[in-house]
Amino acid sequence: MTEIVALHDVPEFHEQTDVVVCGLGGAGVSVALEARATGAEVVALERFSAGGGSTMLSACEMYLGGSGGTRLQRDLGIEDSSENMVNYLMTCFGEHADRARVEAFVDGAAEHFDWLEAQGIPYRRSLFEGRDVVALTGDSLQFTGNERAWPFDQRATPVPRGHLPEDAGHEGGMVVMNTLLGKLEGAGVNCWYDSRLLGLIQEDNGRICGVVAKVDNAPRYVLARRGVVLTTGGFIMNERMTQQNIPELASICTRHGNPGDQGDGIRLGVAAGGVAIHMGQAFVGVAHYPPAQLTYGLFVNAQGQRFINEDVYLSRLGAAVSQQTDMRAFMFIDNRYFARPDYHQTTEIVAVGETVAEVEEEAGLPPGSLQHTVEYYNRYAAEGVDPLFHKSPTWLAPLIEPPFALVDYSLPLLQPACFTLGGLDTLPTGEVLNAEREPIPGLFAAGRTACGIPRTGAGYASGMSVADATLFGRKAGRQAALQPQR
Amino acid sequence: MTEIVALHDVPEFHEQTDVVVCGLGGAGVSVALEARATGAEVVALERFSAGGGSTMLSACEMYLGGSGGTRLQRDLGIEDSSENMVNYLMTCFGEHADRARVEAFVDGAAEHFDWLEAQGIPYRRSLFEGRDVVALTGDSLQFTGNERAWPFDQRATPVPRGHLPEDAGHEGGMVVMNTLLGKLEGAGVNCWYDSRLLGLIQEDNGRICGVVAKVDNAPRYVLARRGVVLTTGGFIMNERMTQQNIPELASICTRHGNPGDQGDGIRLGVAAGGVAIHMGQAFVGVAHYPPAQLTYGLFVNAQGQRFINEDVYLSRLGAAVSQQTDMRAFMFIDNRYFARPDYHQTTEIVAVGETVAEVEEEAGLPPGSLQHTVEYYNRYAAEGVDPLFHKSPTWLAPLIEPPFALVDYSLPLLQPACFTLGGLDTLPTGEVLNAEREPIPGLFAAGRTACGIPRTGAGYASGMSVADATLFGRKAGRQAALQPQR
Repeated sequence: MTEIVALHDVPEFHEQTDVVVCGLGGAGVSVALEARATGAEVVALERFSAGGGSTMLSACEMYLGGSGGTRLQRDLGIEDSSENMVNYLMTCFGEHADRARVEAFVDGAAEHFDWLEAQGIPYRRSLFEGRDVVALTGDSLQFTGNERAWPFDQRATPVPRGHLPEDAGHEGGMVVMNTLLGKLEGAGVNCWYDSRLLGLIQEDNGRICGVVAKVDNAPRYVLARRGVVLTTGGFIMNERMTQQNIPELASICTRHGNPGDQGDGIRLGVAAGGVAIHMGQAFVGVAHYPPAQLTYGLFVNAQGQRFINEDVYLSRLGAAVSQQTDMRAFMFIDNRYFARPDYHQTTEIVAVGETVAEVEEEAGLPPGSLQHTVEYYNRYAAEGVDPLFHKSPTWLAPLIEPPFALVDYSLPLLQPACFTLGGLDTLPTGEVLNAEREPIPGLFAAGRTACGIPRTGAGYASGMSVADATLFGRKAGRQAALQPQR
Repeated sequence: MTEIVALHDVPEFHEQTDVVVCGLGGAGVSVALEARATGAEVVALERFSAGGGSTMLSACEMYLGGSGGTRLQRDLGIEDSSENMVNYLMTCFGEHADRARVEAFVDGAAEHFDWLEAQGIPYRRSLFEGRDVVALTGDSLQFTGNERAWPFDQRATPVPRGHLPEDAGHEGGMVVMNTLLGKLEGAGVNCWYDSRLLGLIQEDNGRICGVVAKVDNAPRYVLARRGVVLTTGGFIMNERMTQQNIPELASICTRHGNPGDQGDGIRLGVAAGGVAIHMGQAFVGVAHYPPAQLTYGLFVNAQGQRFINEDVYLSRLGAAVSQQTDMRAFMFIDNRYFARPDYHQTTEIVAVGETVAEVEEEAGLPPGSLQHTVEYYNRYAAEGVDPLFHKSPTWLAPLIEPPFALVDYSLPLLQPACFTLGGLDTLPTGEVLNAEREPIPGLFAAGRTACGIPRTGAGYASGMSVADATLFGRKAGRQAALQPQR
């Protein structure tokens, strides 16, 4: 482990450039292209033999809107004011939110969509109006988060903001990343593959002016005349860091990301004087839909009580389940709406019965608990209201058709997909901040190495992380390229 | 902000000693006394004009037991095996727990009590059997945490472990700290007051070998031949660090501690290569008792549902309330048990009625919700059981005597006392660990600058933090004193 190397201890520089970007996922490739477009020489280090990162593994939905609407939203007649989008995001992340970052994101989101299209990523002018994690219809616009669910619908007008590459389904990350990675050579980015970042080089005045990387098993020193940008991903693959920051999830979750999400950039940024924030926050995916009909079901905890409106986004449900006794939760559903959830084939049916009482007893729930919950829910659902959690009338219907089932969604059983949301504190320009929130000269971060827009699982929506990574990646690339040469 | 100073940049040393301890709270004074007892020269820096820290502001209950029982427990005929105490603590902190630290704590706890008595702190041989945050009866032993509450009572035999100075009530911190601070001069500790730690001095090989402190407005350099121990407290008084780590609490809590709890030691430890862990964890105190009779009440959330057994310790309740919708919670209680909670005189009665239905309607709870909760609870309480949350039969009685009241315990209203539980990762010896969990030579930490035994508010009990601070303070003092001189 090399960490911080003093400039005067560098034996020789094997390469000199303007900007060094470390990691070629969605953030890194955006940094590299924008820094080149701004006129800087760029060296890009990638730990593996090819770029892609965790962005490539995703559907690469981009959560975009504001400014009256992206070109795609407007082509479909959908208006989306920046104020409305800011209200939504601030509701999502509450006290965790960084308003300056949220506003910069919303300001730049419509233009970012134009940039993505200009790169050649195809987006179809069609809206998927249903409820799915990722539209598999080929449509390029969908609702992705909690926009239509309480209490978000009270604070902002619901607008679809998930922008998906045309016809890509779950392969959107391949489409986006292959497109962007394919431009690196033409843009003149000097890419080093199989090159792992080991450390940062620091001048006596504190400025970061280069990196040490392991290439062909030997340390190589690269001078960065304008800046170093850390884009090595989050830390979900780092056993120790997850135990130290999200211990209750570390032992039960399925780690979602690419093997390089080891937290290297976060650790090096901290070693250089940066600050890692919101490190205990993570996405926990409990996808009870599709099929969308499962939204008619009821979630109850070990006390047989409801605890959430079931029309929320999957990671809001995950966050809520993680707070129930022993992280246990069950879906109660009737024969009319029963189905297996597409993304959790391992759910187990814990009880089936012709009456709710039978199900309750077979499941070992407290006597009368589930019966009351269902009776109360059904009584009001028949009137189109949910007095407890305000589930949308769209998904309210009495559950009255036997047989009834109780399906186990407890996290230790489900082993839900998790990824981390904490990272380095940065300005919207990507500048890494120290404990006084002053920029560390020469050091930038983007992607999940930085703490981005999404800061809690309860407020997350598909597309927020990759949109943040690529949009703020571009900003960081530009900002680094515009630094004076040392 | 000085942070890390390279040894070769130190202009001159104004003082040379074996061990430098930074901060004279409960941890620091224990470090200093034990390092001296081990034969080391000691310089102790204290930011304020006198020592005491947050320990002095506490009742200084010490959570101790194991080894068959402390001398006090045994004198009262109370047995407490180490296995039982380890089981209890592991249940408290779950995946957050550091088993090695828990075991070292339990191993040393009975001896630590002997040490405290040997310092001259008086403990009366009497047990307070009631339910209170701090016994005000003069007794020196009490139950303090969740020992008698579900699910803890299922995993470990309930034993009282809160050791209070005799007749001290809330002034226990004065008794303990005045006793320990009064020994510093006789022990030959060189105390520097009004001396704020600015930075750590590091050798080229990474070893920490001294500190920079601001004394009389000028930097003073102190060489530490054996080690530096950081005992500057937690970070509850640091506005930025709380926003970055416990944002949802930062805006509503009452910051509990002394003004020096600024996180200086944590930040410097991280700058030296240490790792701050569990930084999002905090104590949130919602003390619905004393009077103990309020334990008969029911807590409900905005959905009119119960969410916890009401016989838990106050910070377990606080943790649970913080997870309810908008951090809102209410106590439902009848005329027989109604009282004002001693520690929350600002609670507001939101509704009073001759029937539960009246209370429910006046409070604006969902129709029928509270009525069901109370009816269900009462029905089973009459049989001595709580099917939902297993409150002990001791505190179960139907709430049937009108008028009934609903009292607001919502956190934004209550502004509960909070302090932080995250800090540097250390070995039980106090050695500060880097990201690879290797000790950073010459650097130690104790008290809330380190992440101690108590790692979640949900598992906390009175006395855990000061017992951890003083016990592991002593270990760190000894370990530092035993390092070879540089």
